[in-house]
Amino acid sequence: MATSSDNRRTVTIAEIAALAGVSVPTVSKVLNGRADVAATTRARVEAILEEHSYRRRRGRGSGDPNLIDLVFHHIDNAWAQEVIKGVEDAAAAHRVGVVLSELGGAHRPQQELIDDILARRPLGVLLVLSSLDATQRHQLESRSIPFVVVDTWGEPPAGVPTVGSNNWNGGLIATRHLLSLGHRRIAVISGPSDVLCSRARVDGYRSALEEAGIRSDPSYVRWGDFHVDGGYRHGLELLSRPDRPTAIFAGSDYQCLGVMRAVRELGMSIPEDVSVVGYDDIPLAQWLGPSLTTVRQPLREMAGTATEMVLSIASGERPSNLRIDLATELVVRESTAPAPAGV
Amino acid sequence: MATSSDNRRTVTIAEIAALAGVSVPTVSKVLNGRADVAATTRARVEAILEEHSYRRRRGRGSGDPNLIDLVFHHIDNAWAQEVIKGVEDAAAAHRVGVVLSELGGAHRPQQELIDDILARRPLGVLLVLSSLDATQRHQLESRSIPFVVVDTWGEPPAGVPTVGSNNWNGGLIATRHLLSLGHRRIAVISGPSDVLCSRARVDGYRSALEEAGIRSDPSYVRWGDFHVDGGYRHGLELLSRPDRPTAIFAGSDYQCLGVMRAVRELGMSIPEDVSVVGYDDIPLAQWLGPSLTTVRQPLREMAGTATEMVLSIASGERPSNLRIDLATELVVRESTAPAPAGV
Repeated sequence: MATSSDNRRTVTIAEIAALAGVSVPTVSKVLNGRADVAATTRARVEAILEEHSYRRRRGRGSGDPNLIDLVFHHIDNAWAQEVIKGVEDAAAAHRVGVVLSELGGAHRPQQELIDDILARRPLGVLLVLSSLDATQRHQLESRSIPFVVVDTWGEPPAGVPTVGSNNWNGGLIATRHLLSLGHRRIAVISGPSDVLCSRARVDGYRSALEEAGIRSDPSYVRWGDFHVDGGYRHGLELLSRPDRPTAIFAGSDYQCLGVMRAVRELGMSIPEDVSVVGYDDIPLAQWLGPSLTTVRQPLREMAGTATEMVLSIASGERPSNLRIDLATELVVRESTAPAPAGV
Repeated sequence: MATSSDNRRTVTIAEIAALAGVSVPTVSKVLNGRADVAATTRARVEAILEEHSYRRRRGRGSGDPNLIDLVFHHIDNAWAQEVIKGVEDAAAAHRVGVVLSELGGAHRPQQELIDDILARRPLGVLLVLSSLDATQRHQLESRSIPFVVVDTWGEPPAGVPTVGSNNWNGGLIATRHLLSLGHRRIAVISGPSDVLCSRARVDGYRSALEEAGIRSDPSYVRWGDFHVDGGYRHGLELLSRPDRPTAIFAGSDYQCLGVMRAVRELGMSIPEDVSVVGYDDIPLAQWLGPSLTTVRQPLREMAGTATEMVLSIASGERPSNLRIDLATELVVRESTAPAPAGV
């Protein structure tokens, strides 16, 4: 990814303007995401900017505000809040303000938001469970606005810096824990099947079963939505089967709450009849009844690392590592116990 | 509060500079929160700005960014998240970016943050459970940056616009509900005693007891912190007494979670042995086991109303009402039941 440290600003705005057959102020307007440029003109200018790898010169003292943009696909749970807090703390230490946006559940920003970002010229952009299309990437690059992806949704393109956590390991250690308690019929409810982190967790689950010599039953693998409802729905289905699982790895603490409700409604108990393992270790996990055994994701640390990374790229440094995965660890509490006898 | 609709800009920057014995650029620097002005010079300029009720002229097209500042005393729970979401949605509808800051639990911003706000020239500022001292208020006023307080912490000064909810009514309806179920020994765990909303809830509780002809026992009134720990600690104490309450109005859903854990640890059950009522109706309240009877605070709506208010003041309007309290309502779920027989 090109950053403000690149000194290959081979063309000037005047040259771009001449090539596009427009005035210099028009190029400026396009660079600043202004709406008062005809769409065709704008597209032509953007194409020339990209073709010539134009990079706006930036840096402290440029008069640009000390802001970063934090773009969420959805602000709807404690997970999001931990990330917000992590970014906020790291940015505040640099006296950088955080502009928060939400994509209403979408994983790619609308052009309107990109225009707003170009207009406010932040030091950088953090994208949470969301990403940019090629055009949007080029737009940020030509304005020398670096971006970092926190927890990738899909496969990030080469050269895009990302910070996440070791989801595969999370799935592995959750399942190994249940196996060590004697469980054999273990189900998993993960997130959406097109989200990279939820696929990695399921693969970790499968690996743990495999190393224990247990063939994984495909009908025990469910794709949820990381929300309470998904856990509730899949939990009801799984636990109503004659060959019901004795343990469920629930993919997120929220889904785990949904499974817990399903267990209660079916007249069963946790952990006597069913063990459940969450994911994330949100602050409430320790307070629930029973408190949750869960995989701790270092959300604040991930967010803080991504913030430091985007600020360091903005100040002209090149990170030595473009893909950072922080470690996940198992936290054992009350929601898991040995498998019921005779099962 | 003075707003950008005031046309009483009786002095110019040049006049302020002359009165302060400094250059015009120096006055500009002070207005923009720049750090490179001697503290004494700055204080002198601020004093003259205030004395002459200077108001910077602003408005759309001024080149100022489309931002508002959202200042939290603490981002630490689902309550904060609901407010963030409400502000974010309302601001996005106006294509206004939200800059999020946190005071780390303090209720008054440090000067550094105020300087950063002056430097970024937002359209307005929202303060959540926090407020400004007189100097800080004057600083925002002279830059024509309006502010609105969401959920006041202390008594807001005259003329400061606030949006909250009817906390007194919340305490009243929660306690009336418990009374209607036959409870007589009802305790309350509210927030800190110096926070206006937590005092109002306790007063509502007292009023409900009074109208039922029950003398309120002062030892049943506890001041917590709105966090899980406070509920847990006070819950343990209250429920270990020989004359333990049969019902607890827990002041917040988080404190209610703490009470629920205390109940479990003491080997009691909700609602068979103890009824509990929360406050806020956070999204998780319906999913807990048992699901919470709670007082719904329209947090997103409060946040949205405050956002609309600050943007309308920024655009030169004067709100017809400077203090808005939205209604609270009782949501009855599984955590309350008739008082145990013989109590």
